[in-house]
Amino acid sequence: MSKKKKFAKESLVTKTELVLPNDTNTLNNLMGGRLMHWMDVVSAIAAQKHSNRIVVTASVDNVSFHAPIRLGNVVTLVAKVTRAFNSSMEVHIKVSAEDVPSGQRFDSNEAFFTFVAVDENSKPTGVPELVPESDEEVLLFDGALRRRQLRLVLAKRMKPNEAIELKSIFNID
Amino acid sequence: MSKKKKFAKESLVTKTELVLPNDTNTLNNLMGGRLMHWMDVVSAIAAQKHSNRIVVTASVDNVSFHAPIRLGNVVTLVAKVTRAFNSSMEVHIKVSAEDVPSGQRFDSNEAFFTFVAVDENSKPTGVPELVPESDEEVLLFDGALRRRQLRLVLAKRMKPNEAIELKSIFNID
Amino acid sequence: MSKKKKFAKESLVTKTELVLPNDTNTLNNLMGGRLMHWMDVVSAIAAQKHSNRIVVTASVDNVSFHAPIRLGNVVTLVAKVTRAFNSSMEVHIKVSAEDVPSGQRFDSNEAFFTFVAVDENSKPTGVPELVPESDEEVLLFDGALRRRQLRLVLAKRMKPNEAIELKSIFNID
Amino acid sequence: MSKKKKFAKESLVTKTELVLPNDTNTLNNLMGGRLMHWMDVVSAIAAQKHSNRIVVTASVDNVSFHAPIRLGNVVTLVAKVTRAFNSSMEVHIKVSAEDVPSGQRFDSNEAFFTFVAVDENSKPTGVPELVPESDEEVLLFDGALRRRQLRLVLAKRMKPNEAIELKSIFNID
Amino acid sequence: MSKKKKFAKESLVTKTELVLPNDTNTLNNLMGGRLMHWMDVVSAIAAQKHSNRIVVTASVDNVSFHAPIRLGNVVTLVAKVTRAFNSSMEVHIKVSAEDVPSGQRFDSNEAFFTFVAVDENSKPTGVPELVPESDEEVLLFDGALRRRQLRLVLAKRMKPNEAIELKSIFNID
Amino acid sequence: MSKKKKFAKESLVTKTELVLPNDTNTLNNLMGGRLMHWMDVVSAIAAQKHSNRIVVTASVDNVSFHAPIRLGNVVTLVAKVTRAFNSSMEVHIKVSAEDVPSGQRFDSNEAFFTFVAVDENSKPTGVPELVPESDEEVLLFDGALRRRQLRLVLAKRMKPNEAIELKSIFNID
Repeated sequence: MSKKKKFAKESLVTKTELVLPNDTNTLNNLMGGRLMHWMDVVSAIAAQKHSNRIVVTASVDNVSFHAPIRLGNVVTLVAKVTRAFNSSMEVHIKVSAEDVPSGQRFDSNEAFFTFVAVDENSKPTGVPELVPESDEEVLLFDGALRRRQLRLVLAKRMKPNEAIELKSIFNID
Repeated sequence: MSKKKKFAKESLVTKTELVLPNDTNTLNNLMGGRLMHWMDVVSAIAAQKHSNRIVVTASVDNVSFHAPIRLGNVVTLVAKVTRAFNSSMEVHIKVSAEDVPSGQRFDSNEAFFTFVAVDENSKPTGVPELVPESDEEVLLFDGALRRRQLRLVLAKRMKPNEAIELKSIFNID
Repeated sequence: MSKKKKFAKESLVTKTELVLPNDTNTLNNLMGGRLMHWMDVVSAIAAQKHSNRIVVTASVDNVSFHAPIRLGNVVTLVAKVTRAFNSSMEVHIKVSAEDVPSGQRFDSNEAFFTFVAVDENSKPTGVPELVPESDEEVLLFDGALRRRQLRLVLAKRMKPNEAIELKSIFNID
Repeated sequence: MSKKKKFAKESLVTKTELVLPNDTNTLNNLMGGRLMHWMDVVSAIAAQKHSNRIVVTASVDNVSFHAPIRLGNVVTLVAKVTRAFNSSMEVHIKVSAEDVPSGQRFDSNEAFFTFVAVDENSKPTGVPELVPESDEEVLLFDGALRRRQLRLVLAKRMKPNEAIELKSIFNID
Repeated sequence: MSKKKKFAKESLVTKTELVLPNDTNTLNNLMGGRLMHWMDVVSAIAAQKHSNRIVVTASVDNVSFHAPIRLGNVVTLVAKVTRAFNSSMEVHIKVSAEDVPSGQRFDSNEAFFTFVAVDENSKPTGVPELVPESDEEVLLFDGALRRRQLRLVLAKRMKPNEAIELKSIFNID
Repeated sequence: MSKKKKFAKESLVTKTELVLPNDTNTLNNLMGGRLMHWMDVVSAIAAQKHSNRIVVTASVDNVSFHAPIRLGNVVTLVAKVTRAFNSSMEVHIKVSAEDVPSGQRFDSNEAFFTFVAVDENSKPTGVPELVPESDEEVLLFDGALRRRQLRLVLAKRMKPNEAIELKSIFNID
């Protein structure tokens, strides 16, 4: 029997949050740790939707924090699976923030989280293949291999010179 | 100068939540109070988006709870302003829940929250007119007057026999 | 065997809360959603006490929010069952707030929550009859039928022209 | 001008809580630290009510934990000021717990917390005299001096042989 | 078979916390109840480490609060078992606070919590003997008997004139 | 005037946490997002200690999650600054988990967080130089340059072929 396929858009999840006092540091800015917690929840739901399985966080790629998000801001997190491997899925999360009274909205962060689908005994289990449709989905799908190699190299589970796709970003043949 | 107008869709907000242990009662079902808290946050953000103002909750219409939402379920709340009055806005919230592993999704609740836009001195302030577009938006816009009269009658701020629109649901001329 | 009866006062529950930063919006006022969460907890306990059963929230009647409750205020919620039906109970909640340093105390909200008593299989189960004693208890007991019809009409589970008790508030014979 | 007097009953505060998953340890029992947090809040409100001031916790007397309080239990905390000194007040808290479905209710803890009333500059400020009325209030009022000496001895701010009242519990003249 | 012995240092646990808005009162000071919650968690972990058992809080000795700890301060809690009895352990907790920008650090509190080790049926179970090494550990070990008698007298489980060790602090023979 | 220098060990911070129900997913495992929140708090405190400044999270490097951490486990997070740049600091965090009843302890994660020190106007401000002492501190100090280049390349703020240090891990000259 052939493996099931699913479209990227089927896993789309949006989560909107209001920054409350306990989410902020003494400068009244959203703490990075709280934002990562929200990112983890929204991307886990996306991975659950793609796999119809319980999922566990396997890794988080580099996340940069630029402009501060302020107390009272509205934060919108949008997550979508970019590519599925055997039992793992990479999820892309885009975070934007808005100061609603002034109407100012800005892109805040982008991140990639990886999840593993598990069965009722917590053992990894296969997930449907991901089919990208839009140009952006194709771009994210193609880059997923390179990011996966970087993860494996950083986790010392792949030798740098075997990371064919990753090397390409250094323009090395 | 003419008052600004905004479309219903401009205020659309989606909030997705995962039901965690502390959200549940001893039957492992989502507590009604937690769900109302989420409803309040998502609808306040919708009202903020329509008015570009800080908003305060003015009232909550009847809410019924049917099928229980379970621990681990994914809850999706979608809020949109239905109609604007002078300084107040009615927001419609639709809640659905999904047991992701089984793929079972069901409509859980519908509710109407009303908010007042306030300025920096906490005084009520005017908000843009709401322009409904889709059939559903027009239906919600039209019903808003009747629901408003019911709120005023229940709060004893309108005499029942003045509630023209409301009376119509009792087929009384 | 005749069904057990219980007095309204046997279900009385008082819950006092201090408004902390995370309970407030950016105006330093208590958020409506947090107050509804507290209302749900205190009224669920009242319904539990009347029925000696686990209870689930069935519905919340219209709630209006008048004067804002401020950060640091003491909030007192008092809940009492007003009437029992087969397996459901209506609970009345009265909320007052106090700015203790100034000694200013004001009534904030009143609300009616309805709960269903369930057995260990989550099936609705019978509850004792409620016997009102004080004048206020009798008034609340009598109004319970009318509010119940309004709930059923709003939930589209009763036709408006069958809501005999409810119609009376519109002075229609 | 003579100092204001207030009755013990004017400071009475009741706080009812439902034990939720996050309040419990891995045995599903309420954690001692959570209970002490609730005790602190309810007794601070009692001290605020007596003094109409912001108050800060000065000390907590010995607290023993006997029978475990379980997940789902209803916990009732009742606090009342027992005696006022210059700027400090001793508050007595009584905790009981109930397994509502079985109707089993038991006394869980008793404790004494001491608070200092402070002005807007955080400086200690005088509080009204406490007038006990009931027999239990008189007993608590009388014991307050002895408990105060024990606190001072334990904090090494009083020499044991100066603790006249305290010594009496050892039957020493 | 001889009973296992463990050194005090084997149970050492450090917990560092940042004071966030919801931990504070309206004066922006850490609330006593929150601090006691943290003390309970850190000392429970110390008792777990000594006994390799689930533990339940049995009692808390007098705790005094001196200088206020402020919003944004870093709080360091250090816990270590002082002495083991049959199935119970006394834990000493030292709390210090630091205003990091100014580099000001001060000792805030000291406290003694007692825990009982329990087996899978929640029954008390024996724990290893505690062997003190440093001078401070020996001092705490020696004082543990006296504090235990005070606890028993205060809980009315020991007659004052049987509290031999305790009496010594009153210089009575 | 020469810039101040500080040793790595001066910034050492330990944070111990007990995994509670609300920290876990439906498999009773600690959620990745909660762990990252704790990592952010402990490493922010380490960066504060090094700089005696308020700090804001600038970036988080790849984090992998291996063995699941379970409900009831004790989690120990140890953070230390590895290297200071102009106004930024890299912090290394080591996470271990322990099932105390069985005594099983395992290394769970390692991560690098970067923080920027800011003044009272939220502007970046200089921090002391970091002086590594132990072999491990020197190793971490040396690797910090390479990790920084990877961050800049991933954030598209450095061209891959300018990342001299980073290239070395691909054995390219």
